[in-house]
Amino acid sequence: MSLNSFGHLFRVTTWGESHGPALGATVDGCPPGVAIDEGMLQHWLDRRKPGQSKFTTQRREADAVEILSGVFEGQTTGTPVQLMIRNTDQRSKDYGDIAEKFRPGHADITYWQKYGIRDYRGGGRSSARETAARVAAGGIARAALATLAPGLRITGYMVQMGAQGIDRARFDWDEIGNNPFWAPDAQAAAHWATDLDELRKSGNSVGAVVEVTARGVPAGLGAPVYGKLDTDLAAAMMSINAVKGVEIGEGMAAATLTGVENADEIFMGNDGQPVYSSNHAGGILGGISTGQDVVVRFAVKPTSSILTPRRTITRSGETSEIVTKGRHDPCVGIRAVPVGEAMMACVLLDHILLHRGQVGENRGKIG
Amino acid sequence: MSLNSFGHLFRVTTWGESHGPALGATVDGCPPGVAIDEGMLQHWLDRRKPGQSKFTTQRREADAVEILSGVFEGQTTGTPVQLMIRNTDQRSKDYGDIAEKFRPGHADITYWQKYGIRDYRGGGRSSARETAARVAAGGIARAALATLAPGLRITGYMVQMGAQGIDRARFDWDEIGNNPFWAPDAQAAAHWATDLDELRKSGNSVGAVVEVTARGVPAGLGAPVYGKLDTDLAAAMMSINAVKGVEIGEGMAAATLTGVENADEIFMGNDGQPVYSSNHAGGILGGISTGQDVVVRFAVKPTSSILTPRRTITRSGETSEIVTKGRHDPCVGIRAVPVGEAMMACVLLDHILLHRGQVGENRGKIG
Amino acid sequence: MSLNSFGHLFRVTTWGESHGPALGATVDGCPPGVAIDEGMLQHWLDRRKPGQSKFTTQRREADAVEILSGVFEGQTTGTPVQLMIRNTDQRSKDYGDIAEKFRPGHADITYWQKYGIRDYRGGGRSSARETAARVAAGGIARAALATLAPGLRITGYMVQMGAQGIDRARFDWDEIGNNPFWAPDAQAAAHWATDLDELRKSGNSVGAVVEVTARGVPAGLGAPVYGKLDTDLAAAMMSINAVKGVEIGEGMAAATLTGVENADEIFMGNDGQPVYSSNHAGGILGGISTGQDVVVRFAVKPTSSILTPRRTITRSGETSEIVTKGRHDPCVGIRAVPVGEAMMACVLLDHILLHRGQVGENRGKIG
Amino acid sequence: MSLNSFGHLFRVTTWGESHGPALGATVDGCPPGVAIDEGMLQHWLDRRKPGQSKFTTQRREADAVEILSGVFEGQTTGTPVQLMIRNTDQRSKDYGDIAEKFRPGHADITYWQKYGIRDYRGGGRSSARETAARVAAGGIARAALATLAPGLRITGYMVQMGAQGIDRARFDWDEIGNNPFWAPDAQAAAHWATDLDELRKSGNSVGAVVEVTARGVPAGLGAPVYGKLDTDLAAAMMSINAVKGVEIGEGMAAATLTGVENADEIFMGNDGQPVYSSNHAGGILGGISTGQDVVVRFAVKPTSSILTPRRTITRSGETSEIVTKGRHDPCVGIRAVPVGEAMMACVLLDHILLHRGQVGENRGKIG
Repeated sequence: MSLNSFGHLFRVTTWGESHGPALGATVDGCPPGVAIDEGMLQHWLDRRKPGQSKFTTQRREADAVEILSGVFEGQTTGTPVQLMIRNTDQRSKDYGDIAEKFRPGHADITYWQKYGIRDYRGGGRSSARETAARVAAGGIARAALATLAPGLRITGYMVQMGAQGIDRARFDWDEIGNNPFWAPDAQAAAHWATDLDELRKSGNSVGAVVEVTARGVPAGLGAPVYGKLDTDLAAAMMSINAVKGVEIGEGMAAATLTGVENADEIFMGNDGQPVYSSNHAGGILGGISTGQDVVVRFAVKPTSSILTPRRTITRSGETSEIVTKGRHDPCVGIRAVPVGEAMMACVLLDHILLHRGQVGENRGKIG
Repeated sequence: MSLNSFGHLFRVTTWGESHGPALGATVDGCPPGVAIDEGMLQHWLDRRKPGQSKFTTQRREADAVEILSGVFEGQTTGTPVQLMIRNTDQRSKDYGDIAEKFRPGHADITYWQKYGIRDYRGGGRSSARETAARVAAGGIARAALATLAPGLRITGYMVQMGAQGIDRARFDWDEIGNNPFWAPDAQAAAHWATDLDELRKSGNSVGAVVEVTARGVPAGLGAPVYGKLDTDLAAAMMSINAVKGVEIGEGMAAATLTGVENADEIFMGNDGQPVYSSNHAGGILGGISTGQDVVVRFAVKPTSSILTPRRTITRSGETSEIVTKGRHDPCVGIRAVPVGEAMMACVLLDHILLHRGQVGENRGKIG
Repeated sequence: MSLNSFGHLFRVTTWGESHGPALGATVDGCPPGVAIDEGMLQHWLDRRKPGQSKFTTQRREADAVEILSGVFEGQTTGTPVQLMIRNTDQRSKDYGDIAEKFRPGHADITYWQKYGIRDYRGGGRSSARETAARVAAGGIARAALATLAPGLRITGYMVQMGAQGIDRARFDWDEIGNNPFWAPDAQAAAHWATDLDELRKSGNSVGAVVEVTARGVPAGLGAPVYGKLDTDLAAAMMSINAVKGVEIGEGMAAATLTGVENADEIFMGNDGQPVYSSNHAGGILGGISTGQDVVVRFAVKPTSSILTPRRTITRSGETSEIVTKGRHDPCVGIRAVPVGEAMMACVLLDHILLHRGQVGENRGKIG
Repeated sequence: MSLNSFGHLFRVTTWGESHGPALGATVDGCPPGVAIDEGMLQHWLDRRKPGQSKFTTQRREADAVEILSGVFEGQTTGTPVQLMIRNTDQRSKDYGDIAEKFRPGHADITYWQKYGIRDYRGGGRSSARETAARVAAGGIARAALATLAPGLRITGYMVQMGAQGIDRARFDWDEIGNNPFWAPDAQAAAHWATDLDELRKSGNSVGAVVEVTARGVPAGLGAPVYGKLDTDLAAAMMSINAVKGVEIGEGMAAATLTGVENADEIFMGNDGQPVYSSNHAGGILGGISTGQDVVVRFAVKPTSSILTPRRTITRSGETSEIVTKGRHDPCVGIRAVPVGEAMMACVLLDHILLHRGQVGENRGKIG
């Protein structure tokens, strides 16, 4: 039981601090024979990489991933894959103040209270930099999924920044890659750009909601009652830095529905598979996938490292104030999009392997 | 790795079906020397028991718990505690239709798709009856917490039913036990009673939001980055039947805040412990408890077993309609309240044991 | 992580004390659709049951197993199977002395030192009675194996009692069921009968070596480097009460061989599968099965509960002597035979499921 | 659940292949505040390093360990420690023949049968080179034990090579470091030197028995009934390359004893702690440490990579012969000594943490 690991059969352990020599992921349980190379993983890492627009931190990390084990002649061998990313741009001097003071809303104080020692440089282990390792591991999951669930597509996008949500009527899958917010609604993206610019200049930050949809998920994934697909997704997303809420399908709004409204009625499709009148369930019933789109949303709180002074205390208990200079994302939600996708890929692969192991092909046929 | 287990050191495995001979929980990792008896567990089970008001299912289960192991002369011995609850009121004939048809919004179809066999009687393993085992296990956790974290109090309550939330200005801890909804706001409870009565009579059901607060939680519980306290709470709550969303502190609304607003500013309290200007964090920063109240909310969808006919298919793929007679809760959120409390108790005890094991008393002192 | 559980995907948690109300096993991860009934499990339990000859304890337990969950209309459903065995013949008065004194060579003292409380009646949790739960769980594993690995046969037998081993030249599979020692050598069994009778009458006990062979094991089971098949078998056997040594294939004697002698040379068989000149490896190379017989041996120490007085101390630290009356096996190795078989069945099923999940059918073909 | 991990709370995952870019260990669960540096780990690695005498492989690896995470200003922080060792002397050309043929007694064939792909260079993942990562992780465990169990001393040594054992009457702790065999008996070491030289020259290899003793182990470590201290030790040692048998205390010879002989009688020592007349138990009763020396032995089979030709088959199923040139240890038992020590250190630390977490200081006092 490692508390820095997630997954059952596809098991990822991340390690490393923001300003240590390197960070990475130990990925165990990837099936053998999956074609992997560093370029393929780099593709996903580049989507998360800082410094790509004025809306993300100006720290410039190459985020170049190195495969140290588990791949032979371009294919996984079934042994652990070690992924390492060297830290290169640690301007540690920026963080002098943080050694002594706790940022409100940040893990500074709790790490100290728990461990009595903390690597304060850049947030150490609590830095969102850890998510680079998740994205790299997610790249391996995606490669394995390409073989095991060929029709599967995983897409993340931002649906809300501050109080401003997207207009679902304008939802356009093709728009997502066209703007720095991964927004499926160009108009919302334009609004967010204006708003965020203003917030950034005023030394402030803002929260966001990210949605990740998996299309083409096989029915039957998940396992009652504590290895549920939604349980594992909730844990996966809640484990991402700054996340404060997770929703499946209708999410918190399910509370407002009646049973009549909430029922996703079932029909037989032309291909002999069940189809549904709606997807309030977010593709999961009783913890098991229905074959509909799996839809997860999570809320990311605003960055706590801001230029506006906030009152706090020092390690020795003195009253103080803090202003976090450094280089920080005004809306960490943006860079959480590829991270959410990576977590979805890891969870789905894990459950495909679990299903194959525990159940085999012995599925219930309908019709 | 059992997918019917949760917890790390305090590990609970539940078993049993709604209409099988019995259900229960295997509870491993409870420290030795904890005073336990069946009456103590029964107290918590009685709070969850069906048939206590017209707002819950009329199934009348004694829910009498039997301790089969791990307790000697009134104290835990450090060996597994087996808790068994016999099923007594299984009117299985009520469920005839369900053998062939899938209820929309229910796990019927996914269990079939996954396993190719399902105990359809009363929902089998997917029935909320499983949560009786959680409540019993939670009773053991509470008994252990009484010694290990003496000031800790865990309280669950409903904060929303359908579109109608409580008024936080009227929040009254003492009101919670006075109404059948565990509402901290008597006025909301009265409204809900009227609404639910109407819904029930019309053969419909409705969703709800439950909040669970833990007061007196020691600082330093939780473990980055995948054994976070909030990660484990999210998984615990999402694993409860019908839950579709989980929030910590500000939850989904964190997306709407700026960094300036979201900062819970830190001061030194008179007792030499940090105090905070607010609790947007819900008592958890970086996955580790701050010492503030730990606040979790979860949304429960409306019961899918309703008297209003819904379109569905049969196991052989024929178009059909279903009306679920049986005896069902019009708002399962009500009976989810003690379940949420039990999950909170289990997770907190688990993290107290983990902290003691992995860190010991080596905590960071402030001041 | 429950320390009373074993297995990865096929996960068994045992619970219960020797003189509590009941004991049993929570079996999670059995594939759905496996035909199971209580009679089938009883068959295996009856082989381990006490009181069947003068060479085993005279305690008379019905050891009747009850299936409480996870089986519907005679088949497993993929949900946890709860197996319960009521304790019926607890003559607790026999154990009065043990409440205060520690038996030399017994877990009495260490349970006390660890937990500060122990259920001393009949050894409590440390009693070999716990192995009844293993045998029941093993019955489920065997039923699943019948489908998943049809040619597999698991057979346990005693190969040594005290200093006297069997003569391998007389090894006869058919003899094993014919004598109370599960000996494959009738002549050895006859000797043991005489020896054990004498030892029993003199208030003494004796150790034994048990061997378990699995024939028809598919190649490719196991997983380097800590989930090795031999690692899991070693853990499984060492976890049985009174076991002090475990060997795979050549075992400890492998130390005496040269590389030339130890090489199991490889040829192609007529069926296109590799065949070997010998089986020093015991069917496992690098932690993975070769397809040869998997051969495990374990040594069981003599029962520590004997009628000969031994010097010891009381709980309050006073010098004393102890004579254990009760009803005890003069050679616990005999009843360990079905237990070893059960553990082998559980481990093999587990690794079949793991292989199916993590690798699928993607095996390397030879030729 | 990673099959390349071991330990419960102190959890080590190793990764890497013999001829890949690097290998290492991800060490999670080390308590915070433990003083660690690379030099300290290097000390232990140097003991295992190849090429130190003519009795070990002539491969010359620097085995220089790099700490990539989890240590800040010379102390562990409670976050994962990543240890990396670059491979530098991979003379891969030596292994040409192995790409096509399977060495008898080696994992070549089973890796192929399981995965359908294998990194054959130097044995890939199945190479004993993996044990360097264990030794490095063991160094961290030792550093933590220095604080948590100050009196604990772990010492490994060879007690048998081929048919020739040490003479226990000549056992000398101080001799162990004086000869290339870690032998506690100088005379045995001299014999082994002559024998092994001869074997090596004749292109052969030989097996050995290694014993590891831990002195000063606190009573109360271990956890029934599957997290037993001896179970975990058996698994740890069996997971080491080439190990075919594991013994605790009397080991396989326990079978030959009577209950009267085997009873380690108990007395009160002058310091108020129990003392024993003997240690047949090897310091463990019922899976829990007694406070006596914990004694584990394991048999290492002879290296399968030998210069004497052995019959085998090729990947395409053709009959062939193989001679393994490369650079191999004629007796891998020698280099297994520090590996056994490392595993002992990891298991003991793990159980100290588990005991602290699950039981606390609530131990049973005697007297």
